[in-house]
Amino acid sequence: MKKYTTLILVGIIFVLAVVLAGVLLFLKNQPPQERAVVQPIATVQPLEADSSLWGVNYPNEYSSLIQTANNNTPTTYGGSAQNSYLLEDPRLVLLFMGYPFSKDYNQPRGHENTLIDVRATKRVTDTTHATCYSCKSSDNPGLWAQMGMEAYDAKMFSDVTPDINNPIGCANCHEAGSMRLVITNPAVEAAFQSEGLDWRPFTRQQMRSAVCANCHVTYYFTGENKVLTVPWANGTRVEEIIQYEDSLNFSDWTYPEAGTPIMKARHPDYELFTADSTHYRAGVSCADCHMPYVRDGAMKYSSHDIISPLLDPQQSCGQCHTNVDDVLARVSIIQDTIYQAKIDTEDALIDAITAIKAAAAKPDSDPALLDEGRTLHRHAQFMWDFISSANSMGFHNPDEALRILRNATDLARQAQMKAAQAADDSSLLAVGVYYTINPVPTPVP
Amino acid sequence: MKKYTTLILVGIIFVLAVVLAGVLLFLKNQPPQERAVVQPIATVQPLEADSSLWGVNYPNEYSSLIQTANNNTPTTYGGSAQNSYLLEDPRLVLLFMGYPFSKDYNQPRGHENTLIDVRATKRVTDTTHATCYSCKSSDNPGLWAQMGMEAYDAKMFSDVTPDINNPIGCANCHEAGSMRLVITNPAVEAAFQSEGLDWRPFTRQQMRSAVCANCHVTYYFTGENKVLTVPWANGTRVEEIIQYEDSLNFSDWTYPEAGTPIMKARHPDYELFTADSTHYRAGVSCADCHMPYVRDGAMKYSSHDIISPLLDPQQSCGQCHTNVDDVLARVSIIQDTIYQAKIDTEDALIDAITAIKAAAAKPDSDPALLDEGRTLHRHAQFMWDFISSANSMGFHNPDEALRILRNATDLARQAQMKAAQAADDSSLLAVGVYYTINPVPTPVP
Repeated sequence: MKKYTTLILVGIIFVLAVVLAGVLLFLKNQPPQERAVVQPIATVQPLEADSSLWGVNYPNEYSSLIQTANNNTPTTYGGSAQNSYLLEDPRLVLLFMGYPFSKDYNQPRGHENTLIDVRATKRVTDTTHATCYSCKSSDNPGLWAQMGMEAYDAKMFSDVTPDINNPIGCANCHEAGSMRLVITNPAVEAAFQSEGLDWRPFTRQQMRSAVCANCHVTYYFTGENKVLTVPWANGTRVEEIIQYEDSLNFSDWTYPEAGTPIMKARHPDYELFTADSTHYRAGVSCADCHMPYVRDGAMKYSSHDIISPLLDPQQSCGQCHTNVDDVLARVSIIQDTIYQAKIDTEDALIDAITAIKAAAAKPDSDPALLDEGRTLHRHAQFMWDFISSANSMGFHNPDEALRILRNATDLARQAQMKAAQAADDSSLLAVGVYYTINPVPTPVP
Repeated sequence: MKKYTTLILVGIIFVLAVVLAGVLLFLKNQPPQERAVVQPIATVQPLEADSSLWGVNYPNEYSSLIQTANNNTPTTYGGSAQNSYLLEDPRLVLLFMGYPFSKDYNQPRGHENTLIDVRATKRVTDTTHATCYSCKSSDNPGLWAQMGMEAYDAKMFSDVTPDINNPIGCANCHEAGSMRLVITNPAVEAAFQSEGLDWRPFTRQQMRSAVCANCHVTYYFTGENKVLTVPWANGTRVEEIIQYEDSLNFSDWTYPEAGTPIMKARHPDYELFTADSTHYRAGVSCADCHMPYVRDGAMKYSSHDIISPLLDPQQSCGQCHTNVDDVLARVSIIQDTIYQAKIDTEDALIDAITAIKAAAAKPDSDPALLDEGRTLHRHAQFMWDFISSANSMGFHNPDEALRILRNATDLARQAQMKAAQAADDSSLLAVGVYYTINPVPTPVP
């Protein structure tokens, strides 16, 4: 009898222990962390330009990277479909008049197309420097290491063409062997330094944004050799960049007839996103949305088929947001708002340009007032372009985009007023002249 | 020996059972849902004005309501401290010149102070209608039911004073007996109807915002009797309200010397919040942030000590956001941005007003162009005021606030330009004249 009691008690203990173990296991209930330790099959040489060789060790990452060749889907305000921005919004033809962007300015396609597209654009001519290959090829880290960026940029575009054989690839962001994320663009390395920042102690999550800054930052050219330079020495806010480029008296071109020295902004995605945006402050990285973790069987990897999150919102937004449909509606509201603000700012800029041109044509115009008008135009146009040339139609930082566009509108209107004052001619105060220009310049597609 | 074995085994069972029970209890760990069914002690008469009688049945709600008498804490851009807006930002004295708001315009205090404060303000004079009591007393639902809103508004302020004895209270939002949330303001009832909306089928969560619209909406006065009217017939967006008030040729006052017919916006908190704001779209109600659920012992109730969420962020924001410190930092960024945009818009408006006044003073000014300038001024000022007069320094809907301020800036600058065109005088294009006005008008505190 006592034997049975013992057996029953041991049985109860066993059952309780199993239940407890099960419950504890359930409590442990963390997302599976299986991070496969990859046993390298092939040894990849430092700065190896050929991504397919890295792909032997990382077949998922590589095979998703080469999918970027096929992206051809537009979103409402972006995507990778190579639409002509100039045909979509002919105001841009006026705003970039006198500069190659008025001739050819398309939505960029996926990373795998960088070489095809940079070689096809009408913006590249016989006098274009090699600088324009900077963000187009995984051959660059090797070439920069070999010859230095200054010597590279001093060459002509066509002179380095034979050495440039691979589009954007592994070597642009990864260190061979360790696979850690690295800044490979010397101009961006210098830019971080100029801010007093060293990217090396950044966390991996910080690097999942910082490596995008290898290319997705604004830049200008230093000197005759057109050395790629990122203007962050005073900070990365639009006002700090303007202040810095002003201090150098830098301009990309002089606006025809108006005489305004214009500086071009170029896709300042990293600057805009990191300017205290909601997502940035919440610790989200560029890769979280644009390279979400996906699964293939037991493997979990960060997709290298980099696209707009709007093309796969469940995978991108759905990692954090439970109601993806509502997120998409919210994105539409934000982007529609910023799009309209951008167009209205363009109208104000075109009114300013028209007035400055008219004032400049009058011999009696006050040159000091006219120059004040040009400075206002210069600043307004850079502010507008800071949002216009950034990807995401302002979504990377909606409040900052709307803040900047309000300031740009104000300065553009003030530029127009200065021109009218310079010419002492109130007929220069016409508003909405874009609509009255006839015919609207035909963009060269 | 076997006895000991049995004892030990029983001991182990006991320990395991206790551990298992603890773990299960922990798993159960849901927020307690005890919603006490209140057994009414006292019967409250329909439209009862005296909140203390309702308080017999709802002591927690009532005792928190009367705390609003003591709120005297400012936040960076709001709170309940009765600061003088005119002293904080003397631009407002210029913008409201010719209207009582230029004489006395303070931050509102808590609901319990409504009667003290409306009777003290210099905006109320011998010619003020009873309309100005509309949002100040729980006596109103009963009085409106008795005499109708039109007859109420036709009386003078001082004539109804003897009938007005209670500040904002239970009867402004609740139906006695059922305690359901109801629209009690006939002007707001009519406004919903004018939109084709019936609030009666609204969910309780929708009503937890809609009852705030009993007062926190913009309004204007219809006819000689100053009947309170909410201008939603074309919709609740700022452009729709402008279009509607324009169609009536309504104006609150004519700006002295400029001649602009101005319409005043008044705390359009409900309109701004429901214009597709992030929080509204996420299903958050006004009460979720301003009247968060709190506990007193076993009781859980919605605090009726209505304050800025920034004064108790853990209780308000912390219901949804885990990192409240980060939320507060984000609120600061948003409000700082909107504050600066608001000030810059005010500068543009003051430049416009200065120019219109100068043009109006010149006998040769083109009257048609001058009127165009006035219309632009009217629209710009209403847009600005729509954000300025709303509580929250734009936080109720940041993107919408920045969108509206960008448009307001643009229209204000265009107004200035029209004035210069009307006078054919480019000297009217001065910018930043607020800073050059000397002396800045001294606000009457």
